[in-house]
Amino acid sequence: MKIAVLSDGAWGTALAMNLIDNGHEVVSWGPFPDYLDEMREKRENVRFLPGVKLPEALSFEADIGRAADGAGLLLLATPTQYLRGVLDKLKPHFDPQRHLLLDVAKGIEVDSRLLISEMVRQVLGPNRYAVLSGPSHAEEVSRRVPTAVVAASANPADAELVQQLFINDNFRVYTGSDVVGVELGGALKNVMAIAAGIIDGMKLGDNPKAALMTRGISEMGRLGELLGGKAQTFSGLSGIGDLIVTCTSGHSRNRHVGEELGRGKRLPEILSSMGMVVAEGVTTARGAYTLARRTGAETPIIDEIHAILYEDRNVPDAIRNLMSRSAKPE
Amino acid sequence: MKIAVLSDGAWGTALAMNLIDNGHEVVSWGPFPDYLDEMREKRENVRFLPGVKLPEALSFEADIGRAADGAGLLLLATPTQYLRGVLDKLKPHFDPQRHLLLDVAKGIEVDSRLLISEMVRQVLGPNRYAVLSGPSHAEEVSRRVPTAVVAASANPADAELVQQLFINDNFRVYTGSDVVGVELGGALKNVMAIAAGIIDGMKLGDNPKAALMTRGISEMGRLGELLGGKAQTFSGLSGIGDLIVTCTSGHSRNRHVGEELGRGKRLPEILSSMGMVVAEGVTTARGAYTLARRTGAETPIIDEIHAILYEDRNVPDAIRNLMSRSAKPE
Repeated sequence: MKIAVLSDGAWGTALAMNLIDNGHEVVSWGPFPDYLDEMREKRENVRFLPGVKLPEALSFEADIGRAADGAGLLLLATPTQYLRGVLDKLKPHFDPQRHLLLDVAKGIEVDSRLLISEMVRQVLGPNRYAVLSGPSHAEEVSRRVPTAVVAASANPADAELVQQLFINDNFRVYTGSDVVGVELGGALKNVMAIAAGIIDGMKLGDNPKAALMTRGISEMGRLGELLGGKAQTFSGLSGIGDLIVTCTSGHSRNRHVGEELGRGKRLPEILSSMGMVVAEGVTTARGAYTLARRTGAETPIIDEIHAILYEDRNVPDAIRNLMSRSAKPE
Repeated sequence: MKIAVLSDGAWGTALAMNLIDNGHEVVSWGPFPDYLDEMREKRENVRFLPGVKLPEALSFEADIGRAADGAGLLLLATPTQYLRGVLDKLKPHFDPQRHLLLDVAKGIEVDSRLLISEMVRQVLGPNRYAVLSGPSHAEEVSRRVPTAVVAASANPADAELVQQLFINDNFRVYTGSDVVGVELGGALKNVMAIAAGIIDGMKLGDNPKAALMTRGISEMGRLGELLGGKAQTFSGLSGIGDLIVTCTSGHSRNRHVGEELGRGKRLPEILSSMGMVVAEGVTTARGAYTLARRTGAETPIIDEIHAILYEDRNVPDAIRNLMSRSAKPE
């Protein structure tokens, strides 16, 4: 099957490599033609996935219409806040019957407070949609490190199609139907990863970090259920699995932001030192905070991270607030 | 309140320190009078909690009857396989009305396949019983690192008594009623920690480790429910919380055993290099494997770890078995 990867980022490129391993025809589109030329010539995604040789079979296309033409799967891998612009470009070429959309980005659109599936429906109208998520650092997938993820769609046949396209010995794909739960798990864990990073940066210890992650997954499930997800989804690969990898691994950009905050650095300084690399959790915290207020969910961790990022809350004070919450039945 | 800590191990000592911080009278009993003398003189638990100064108020008593006399709480902190011997010694001095038993050890008795609450009932008859568990490395608790745990008892008043005895700014105690779920979480996570350690030792990566931990918590919940625990308990501090800390921290002895196995060392060699330090997961794997067979639960991770430890299964083969299980709905 022809597949168009609509992103020049690390995750899109790593998944493109996996699809090529499986014998599919993959074309990579990105918003910057010069950068596509550079990737084509160097056979490397120097900026976002350095050191990994790209397969010869991976082609590059600067025209989104030509990229989508004849494709059965369109892979949405752009950072959430840029996705609407990509969907606008895609719209004239989008075929709602032929094209299955597969989102692999993780976030909440800040201005609209929409999940990605909701944003996609708003821009493209009724569509075939699936989301793929789980503990999966792009860099490890590009090195064919064994990885397990979940593909969820309201239509079981579409979830199974995604499974069949991606599955191989190094990449296990489970199917599911809870699109909202999978999307929220992927988005909210990035906020929790900032909190976990703060604990690392302050060198508080393993006990408080594990306690925070446990309360974090419970908070995600609570908010997720109120927003239409299933509690069980948050105990799976796209929930606790992704939370674990993001909170414990050296690869995570969101954990990194937290670590620097915990060391006493200021947010603007941290973000500017990261250049073009996006930490989704920073924007997701705003969306999650508003959604939590709307539902009335109790979300102490999201609230304190939001306060640190956007209300100038002192970091040690925020952590102290979280630790000293009154003890009660678990 | 007078409290007797029936163990000279790291966890008993760390909890004794916390209780002394809260103004209680704490006496520490251990099976070796010479070692009690050494701790009393050096004010240090050199063998199991080196480098931590013990408070002057902590007293030591080689006679278990005198230790238990007048105590309101008896803290059971002996490694599981030695606990029956301690209970036998305690029996003539045990007062089922006055003494609340608090288990903080985590395991399954190998020969009987009994949980600790079951073994205690078998030896001491009807009793007041609670269990305290959660992500809590002893060494961090002894340094007053913020820690959160759960205290569960069939009798809510006893769970609340434990909460009131232990709680302070650095040690948050939540209450619960699912004794079996909390006991099984603490026991089974040590088996999962061996599996996680193997992935570390083989340097397989963060993605497979997170996938294994996710499947691990789901396996623990599945088996736990069949054995009478509540699924929800496994999502809490004594389940996923303790699993996270044990699988990710440098302190864990069970993870260490796995790491050495993953590097290609043999079990007898690993255990002998650990001296008197006990890795509960090695024996728990046997108990868990039998209990799983009895219930008919599907427990692929426990099965492979059992095969590695007791059936001479090749480690990379076992990991390959786990990774290549057929993909299906999550």
